[in-house]
Amino acid sequence: MIEDKNQEKTGLDQLGEFELINHLTKNFTLQHKSSIMGIGDDAAVMDFSNKKAVMSTDLLIEGVHFDLSYMPLKHLGYKSVMVNLSDIYAMNAIATQITVSIAVSNRFPLEALEEFYSGVALACEIYKVDLVGGDTTSSTKGMLISVTAVGEADEADIVYRSGAKPNDLLVVSGDLGGAYCGLQVLEREKEVFKVNPNNQPDLSPYTYIVERQLKPEARKDIKGLLQQLEILPTSMIDISDGLSSEILHLCSKSAVGCNVYENKIPLDPTVISACEEFKIDSTLVALSGGEDYELLFTIDQKDFPKIKGNPHFTVIGHMTDKNEGAHLISRGDAKIPLTAQGWNSFS
Amino acid sequence: MIEDKNQEKTGLDQLGEFELINHLTKNFTLQHKSSIMGIGDDAAVMDFSNKKAVMSTDLLIEGVHFDLSYMPLKHLGYKSVMVNLSDIYAMNAIATQITVSIAVSNRFPLEALEEFYSGVALACEIYKVDLVGGDTTSSTKGMLISVTAVGEADEADIVYRSGAKPNDLLVVSGDLGGAYCGLQVLEREKEVFKVNPNNQPDLSPYTYIVERQLKPEARKDIKGLLQQLEILPTSMIDISDGLSSEILHLCSKSAVGCNVYENKIPLDPTVISACEEFKIDSTLVALSGGEDYELLFTIDQKDFPKIKGNPHFTVIGHMTDKNEGAHLISRGDAKIPLTAQGWNSFS
Repeated sequence: MIEDKNQEKTGLDQLGEFELINHLTKNFTLQHKSSIMGIGDDAAVMDFSNKKAVMSTDLLIEGVHFDLSYMPLKHLGYKSVMVNLSDIYAMNAIATQITVSIAVSNRFPLEALEEFYSGVALACEIYKVDLVGGDTTSSTKGMLISVTAVGEADEADIVYRSGAKPNDLLVVSGDLGGAYCGLQVLEREKEVFKVNPNNQPDLSPYTYIVERQLKPEARKDIKGLLQQLEILPTSMIDISDGLSSEILHLCSKSAVGCNVYENKIPLDPTVISACEEFKIDSTLVALSGGEDYELLFTIDQKDFPKIKGNPHFTVIGHMTDKNEGAHLISRGDAKIPLTAQGWNSFS
Repeated sequence: MIEDKNQEKTGLDQLGEFELINHLTKNFTLQHKSSIMGIGDDAAVMDFSNKKAVMSTDLLIEGVHFDLSYMPLKHLGYKSVMVNLSDIYAMNAIATQITVSIAVSNRFPLEALEEFYSGVALACEIYKVDLVGGDTTSSTKGMLISVTAVGEADEADIVYRSGAKPNDLLVVSGDLGGAYCGLQVLEREKEVFKVNPNNQPDLSPYTYIVERQLKPEARKDIKGLLQQLEILPTSMIDISDGLSSEILHLCSKSAVGCNVYENKIPLDPTVISACEEFKIDSTLVALSGGEDYELLFTIDQKDFPKIKGNPHFTVIGHMTDKNEGAHLISRGDAKIPLTAQGWNSFS
């Protein structure tokens, strides 16, 4: 996990800023028909014709959002793209283009940036998005990444956070809490490594949760799955800050309340065993852990038969009148107000 | 210029991340008909109907791109937007939307971010662009800003860097070198301030060049001016890194050479006198200074009568066959190869 500091490395000052961009992006090609001009002019040019364009952006800062002592740069490049594509998919749109900006201090050699961009390239290939721009500059400390993702959708397909109605069912894709548990494993191994750098950790029992943290996948497939089921969600959001925080966003934007059932929250067995090992409450992890990049959405009750038993989706609750507020109904049938304990970088 | 550290300030940890975004953006409204959804969902939604969309992004890092000891935060917010709009105008497009992401360390109180966003708001108002998204997070050191700008244009109006032909005339808007000279004045005053904090500098002789550095304006007007003159440039780029570097970009992308005439380069009298005072060569400043945010473009020779004598534009040279290379023809008629000595953050 820790890079070999003795290899021959190329200093970034050996290349000009434009040479650097050219070098890092030379293998990227444009695949989307909406990409008219990519990297190499003052701006990218895109043609959305009769579609609507959607756009989202995120900043990722070393020491705040990621730790390079256990995050391989290729994974970081991949994850940086995922974080943003997830927002595009949460609009029920198709992601089409991204820009990637990166600032690094002079401790990073060219080879480190090549690793990062190889992760970006892999994400572009798998998710069929075009890298059409970005900026590359130096920082005074560490690495920071800014990604903007663009997508397209027919107007009628776009799903906002604001369309949920009382009695709509609350549905989540995949399972929750994995990314947070993976982070706990990695943090523990980092501490072990500090004490004994020769220790070779066996992470195999934790493969799933470590991958959820290091190499999350955005839910590109959900739009198609829902289309096949002939379901258009009434509201949708992606789960980046934790289930609790996202439910409260849907409630607030849609002016509704919500009951979510603790015993319905989908947890992978690896998450349950990791929570036992780390002596943390698995429900709390699912509610507040964050970084799962699953989609949370509401559907009309009449669509319940279409989704029932589908392995991709779990109905975890229902929306209520706004005055009823947002609550977790515990396994013991207690009604506990939901609070946003999602991750806050400032606290 | 230096903020009063004794005022009552509000720590960012007193607000949640969403409260902070809401607070900072509550006075922004959507004005553009292409802005369907702004801040408040997973992504912004835009409608470019039959227009093409253009997009550009830049990173600005404290200590690399700006110095808060003389850059007021409101100006910084304004300039951050200008830097990006300039790229949109360099495509001969109309800027329509921006996203602004900002990361700050905990030394910044809420009031500092309010100042920054007031500059962003002023830019949005004057330049008629909508703030439709962004990200707000903490950094481990200093302030960093990422802006993405979006615009729209009819396909036939878009001007790339690649369309220049031999014999086309090379034209620049406004005048050059001011921003670099302004920076020299500010750096000098900063050194004086370090020695004598009670010194009140008289910057009035330098108003123009200091404003060119602290509060540049992007050339929103050029598209309209050229339309009135019935000129469509054959290639265009904005001058962010210095005239020399931008000419070389046009030459490279268009596969042409260029002769640029030293005695034609437009310089404001304040720039000339500042260069004398600082004992720097004014031509070198214009060629390599950067941050002028003027537009550099080529036009067909037949359009010369339309532009001749126009106070907004100066013909500074002409394009040649690629094999002739890119040269500065000095006042003494020497032919000096142009080299990109534009600013490189890595060196």
